[in-house]
Amino acid sequence: MGGKGNKKLIKMGLEGVRIELPSQKPILLLKEENGNRYLPIWIGPFEASAIALEMSHIKTPRPMTHDLIVNIIKNLGIKIDNIEISDIKENTFYAVITIIGKNIKKIRIDSRPSDAIATAVRTKCDIFAAEHVLDSSGLVIQSIDEEVDKFKDFLEHVRPEDFK
Amino acid sequence: MGGKGNKKLIKMGLEGVRIELPSQKPILLLKEENGNRYLPIWIGPFEASAIALEMSHIKTPRPMTHDLIVNIIKNLGIKIDNIEISDIKENTFYAVITIIGKNIKKIRIDSRPSDAIATAVRTKCDIFAAEHVLDSSGLVIQSIDEEVDKFKDFLEHVRPEDFK
Repeated sequence: MGGKGNKKLIKMGLEGVRIELPSQKPILLLKEENGNRYLPIWIGPFEASAIALEMSHIKTPRPMTHDLIVNIIKNLGIKIDNIEISDIKENTFYAVITIIGKNIKKIRIDSRPSDAIATAVRTKCDIFAAEHVLDSSGLVIQSIDEEVDKFKDFLEHVRPEDFK
Repeated sequence: MGGKGNKKLIKMGLEGVRIELPSQKPILLLKEENGNRYLPIWIGPFEASAIALEMSHIKTPRPMTHDLIVNIIKNLGIKIDNIEISDIKENTFYAVITIIGKNIKKIRIDSRPSDAIATAVRTKCDIFAAEHVLDSSGLVIQSIDEEVDKFKDFLEHVRPEDFK
């Protein structure tokens, strides 16, 4: 699917973190910005809470581990440019955090997707997925909203004779 | 106890992480290098496992969150000089991670003690505690080894008539 550096990247939005039933495992859900494919990634409970806390704008009295990462980077006067879900191998997703700064070359750091997203949500940086990852693991999920809209449409147009 | 920057620092060794019973809460144990005072600090289960995994030299297939912190710092060509348990307020311990590098000023970053120790154990940097923290919260713990030594000494010198 093309070598490193010339992969096509697709902009993603962070939908959120959910608990999958009945496994009770947390799942991170990304959605293609200009499309309808979702990328579900199973993550650990600690990382899930690190993402969910920040998405809910809950401030903890002391810096949590991902706040510390962001504080180190800010204190060095550099920033996270973007994060990327870069690959999938044997059902394991890989991610890369790209750091940029005035006096440094662009640096790409290997990360688990959960840590990359937990830092992305704190820095509001862009989130990408490599096209081949989305091609192989993206899912089109029929949303509940769509189902509700369909049902409302049905109620508006249904006639008594439809039940005969 | 003196302002920031002129606090006396005491070198500490990391004894390990234990589970305190019956609370089942993990506790981080530091020991004064040239003394017999211990500093027990309650920490979260995730941070406890981050410290214990590294102390046991267990390598995970993917970088854990504190590995990511260390990788970011290494990739930037800088390093953690030391960490310091800097203060205690209302039963909460505070720590500082000090980062140094060729082209940067010494940077001090606010951290929870657990995150600071989890990065220290990965970089083998010095661990300090502010003297006033050790004065107020240090404990002299009679070690099991000392008890065993006392018992062996007793066995060597005990005579039948001692039981009369």
